[in-house]
Amino acid sequence: MELRLDRIATLLEGLEETIIGRLIDRAQFAVNEQAYAHGKSGFVGEDGSLFELRLRYQEEIDSVFGRFCVPEERPFTNDLPPTRRDVNIPDTGLRLNDLQLINACDRIQESYLGLLPTLCRPGNDGQYGSSVEHDVMALQAMSRRIHFGALYVAECKYRDTPADFDTLITAGDTEGLVSRLTRPEVEERIITRVGDKVETMQARVNKDVRVRVEPSLVMTYYRDTIIPVTKQQEVAYLVNRERTPPTGTSRRS
Amino acid sequence: MELRLDRIATLLEGLEETIIGRLIDRAQFAVNEQAYAHGKSGFVGEDGSLFELRLRYQEEIDSVFGRFCVPEERPFTNDLPPTRRDVNIPDTGLRLNDLQLINACDRIQESYLGLLPTLCRPGNDGQYGSSVEHDVMALQAMSRRIHFGALYVAECKYRDTPADFDTLITAGDTEGLVSRLTRPEVEERIITRVGDKVETMQARVNKDVRVRVEPSLVMTYYRDTIIPVTKQQEVAYLVNRERTPPTGTSRRS
Repeated sequence: MELRLDRIATLLEGLEETIIGRLIDRAQFAVNEQAYAHGKSGFVGEDGSLFELRLRYQEEIDSVFGRFCVPEERPFTNDLPPTRRDVNIPDTGLRLNDLQLINACDRIQESYLGLLPTLCRPGNDGQYGSSVEHDVMALQAMSRRIHFGALYVAECKYRDTPADFDTLITAGDTEGLVSRLTRPEVEERIITRVGDKVETMQARVNKDVRVRVEPSLVMTYYRDTIIPVTKQQEVAYLVNRERTPPTGTSRRS
Repeated sequence: MELRLDRIATLLEGLEETIIGRLIDRAQFAVNEQAYAHGKSGFVGEDGSLFELRLRYQEEIDSVFGRFCVPEERPFTNDLPPTRRDVNIPDTGLRLNDLQLINACDRIQESYLGLLPTLCRPGNDGQYGSSVEHDVMALQAMSRRIHFGALYVAECKYRDTPADFDTLITAGDTEGLVSRLTRPEVEERIITRVGDKVETMQARVNKDVRVRVEPSLVMTYYRDTIIPVTKQQEVAYLVNRERTPPTGTSRRS
């Protein structure tokens, strides 16, 4: 991983299409409240909701395939099985002993579930399995973007002016860190670009058959959730960042 | 399911964005031949390729969640576990005793794997897990479109002129059936529309960070694979279609 801020920013930009695509996919189905109700999964002997079951089953196989060995892939569920694969992660340049210290999944899940009644048409269309399948894909796309940003943007910015950051970290000045990490003009540019993409990605949609997602909805979600949660996790990274080089030549996970 | 040809056609149109999106997602990674090589999965004690393992694991959980109770969701792998969910499929109107008689997955998989060297940049980027994850999503999107088209388009067309089709079916006139199912002007319209969508869905892409897929590539794939395989399966449906109403009031699966 080349730790240059412009490079990280373009990689983050490349994840926008995936997030938007997943949200549009989910919007093709109704809210389907029943898929989120406990004891209504249709699975014999399971108390959780269909959504919870799908998320856990999916993360179990993802874990077996090594997804969570990658720093920006943080799980939503606990007690996952170990990977069965040899996953070779190149030196990330990050300075964090425990990747799980940076995990915003609870907050991502909560805000995403809160978005569904606005994203999707009301009611039930019976497509519970497809709905929760797309939920999991949307959540994973957002988690990847938020954690990738949190880890690598924070490390890049730290390296630019380590003394300044050390002062704020030592003083426990969280507000100072947030302020230092905030560039309003960059955030506005991202939000505008996301809105443009939502528009153009649906330009040829046949509205008789595909539900169209309003650009403003995804823009608001970026403004109120994705960007602030990323920043909150950047602060968490900086506060937990190792001040001395880790033992060994490089951090692998 | 409302068995009207114009309605089926718009539903098929609505699946195009998903297929295109999945192909674009896969194109972000290199060909990664190693992910398709036997004995190179990195899984201890497994002979299959990483691709094969991912496909099997994914279909196992999909099967548990009831995916293959849906007529147009046909599996690529065998010996899957039964569903653990109560899945209620409304009367489909189809006349087929065994859904597995209509399964083009082998041909879809073969043609898709043949597409990868054109779709993706050559070489290895180490992103094997992500590559095969997106393969599975692309395959499932194409399978859904092809089988949905095969089953419902064939049934609709049969109902329009049952006597004509009965004659061809009884005579075993496969060529006659293909000819009867072919509408070149409709096929050309689909292919042009798909090309337009590939173009507009990527209109705001930053080419420094996202790989852009050529519209002609997806158009060719529709022309040479998706459309003819759908038609081949339409013929299979008609040949296997029950001539007498099934017992019970409606077909459920």
